Amino acid sequence: MANEGSREDPETASLGQLPAALARSDGRLEQAISTRLSKVPSPVLQSALERSTSGGKRLRPLLALWFSDSLGVASDNADRIACLTEWLHSAFLIHDDIQDGDEWRRDQPTLWKSHGISTALNAADWLLSAVYLEVSQMLLQDEIRARLLSAVQDVHSRTVLGQQYDLDGRGDPDFGLDRYEQAVRAKTGRYLALGMVAVAIVVRLNQRAVDQLWAVGDHLGPAFQIQDDLLDLTSSKGRAGQLGNDIREGKPSILYAHALERGQLAQEQKARLVDVMAEERALTRDDDVEWVISLFHDCGSIDFARNQAVDRAEAGIDLFRDIPGVPRELHATFEQVARFAVERNR
Amino acid sequence: MANEGSREDPETASLGQLPAALARSDGRLEQAISTRLSKVPSPVLQSALERSTSGGKRLRPLLALWFSDSLGVASDNADRIACLTEWLHSAFLIHDDIQDGDEWRRDQPTLWKSHGISTALNAADWLLSAVYLEVSQMLLQDEIRARLLSAVQDVHSRTVLGQQYDLDGRGDPDFGLDRYEQAVRAKTGRYLALGMVAVAIVVRLNQRAVDQLWAVGDHLGPAFQIQDDLLDLTSSKGRAGQLGNDIREGKPSILYAHALERGQLAQEQKARLVDVMAEERALTRDDDVEWVISLFHDCGSIDFARNQAVDRAEAGIDLFRDIPGVPRELHATFEQVARFAVERNR
Repeated sequence: MANEGSREDPETASLGQLPAALARSDGRLEQAISTRLSKVPSPVLQSALERSTSGGKRLRPLLALWFSDSLGVASDNADRIACLTEWLHSAFLIHDDIQDGDEWRRDQPTLWKSHGISTALNAADWLLSAVYLEVSQMLLQDEIRARLLSAVQDVHSRTVLGQQYDLDGRGDPDFGLDRYEQAVRAKTGRYLALGMVAVAIVVRLNQRAVDQLWAVGDHLGPAFQIQDDLLDLTSSKGRAGQLGNDIREGKPSILYAHALERGQLAQEQKARLVDVMAEERALTRDDDVEWVISLFHDCGSIDFARNQAVDRAEAGIDLFRDIPGVPRELHATFEQVARFAVERNR
Repeated sequence: MANEGSREDPETASLGQLPAALARSDGRLEQAISTRLSKVPSPVLQSALERSTSGGKRLRPLLALWFSDSLGVASDNADRIACLTEWLHSAFLIHDDIQDGDEWRRDQPTLWKSHGISTALNAADWLLSAVYLEVSQMLLQDEIRARLLSAVQDVHSRTVLGQQYDLDGRGDPDFGLDRYEQAVRAKTGRYLALGMVAVAIVVRLNQRAVDQLWAVGDHLGPAFQIQDDLLDLTSSKGRAGQLGNDIREGKPSILYAHALERGQLAQEQKARLVDVMAEERALTRDDDVEWVISLFHDCGSIDFARNQAVDRAEAGIDLFRDIPGVPRELHATFEQVARFAVERNR
């Protein structure tokens, strides 16, 4: 019986799916989110918020719930930690889509397309205010709340800076791997780890554990992002079938940084690459996008990125194994999470 | 000698100017702001932040500094309270200008015009994160910090809701004075009082004092906003000489609410008013704007608004006189602030 059971082991995740240990909290998360959104008094704002928080992978909040439950965080506080990671992520996605001129996300029109820029901005503002509402309302000693506030705020401002480094790098011929590293760490690292760090603070793990969790994020966040950048070249990532959106919007990805710095491009290749990236999105031609994708293949940027994603995920797994206060039983699931980050196909 | 001195009494404010008791802290405020912005690592973001925090009246942070000094808040904490009100205000103005399609503010191009929407959004995000950084870094007992966080967060989310009520009312023929009241209180009331409430929390005034300060804001914030709405019809409010911007953007002001509900408009007047307000900004014709302005005059909306502004300012003054723990010596200056709010010409 035990063996039969294990053939359908819910812990066994297939590629492209979140580990079952995380996915099983999806209903609970949905409940926590919809309870909160049901109290929003403007129907227009409410519909915008429902739209912007639906349909995603919800990796961050599910990771937060799994880690909360594993370390014994009270259920209401766990919901709040999960929700605050979802609010922060959703707010940034709304702004990202406006900044990038993206019209599709998760195979739906983006929020600014469906609800207009005004309401989209307001929804993002609501989400950011809700991040701090969760911190404010958690049942905690105020000294712990102060540490949590500091962590959440730090992630908020680092992510904004990372986004700025990303904007600053668009169409910049001097962009390279160092600047990529600075941008991606600020933009994605801390914020992937935030839910787990919040849990660590709430259950009073020591500072070394907290620092180590941040370090896990510094590796796994970029790994996740690099996989995203690769998927943009091979599948459409919910963008109505269009490939190479990142190229159209001039995003300074690891591929762009690698090609410029180590691709040994001829002068005219480099000039054309920068031109295509700097071109306004609507004016970027399909054959230019295809040319950039083959350039990335030819000069080894794709292989470099793939190796980087895997290496960083493995580094994150190694770091996670060595966190004081985190039980060994969690290692296998975290490994699945890290592999999911770099093996998923959406 | 005493009499000679009082002829140039720095406490005597002329119309259109902040009371001297507030204005004298302007240099200190400038210093606090520029010290913080000088640490922003991206020059593009830094320039956007400098632009968005310069040239305004700075009523809120100067009110916060004056109240801090009067009640004995430590200088560093006072600077933080002042800055957080400025950050919040500046973030909302950036979003407002995008939402309203405004191209001019303070006789300069708005941030989205000068720096592009992407950087403007990022600057607003930075400012919102900086609001909570000030809360997080203030030298305070954590129990006091928790109360402060709750107050700041509450203002943040109320203001977002108020903005949504405002957006929801655009071009709505059923908009009236009740809905105006709901929107303006949420959008402007709490946030004008925030600096003073923060001071009250930090110096541990009792809950009655805090509630009374919020009530002051509930009156004075709308008074300030109504004066803004009136100025839009008579002077250009830093918008390159153009009058009636609020009409062009369809803003559901007290004038619009009054005209619709109590203006005793003929059916065709009402229909034209709603049409002009609902029309896209760029398509609104100058003669339509002029027609709406004379309609507001003719049906008594201007007089109504002027009286409302003055009555609310007076109510705020009365409430301020009755706050436990606030010394009588502050009453005269606060009266000047309240009168400034409704008598200023910019």
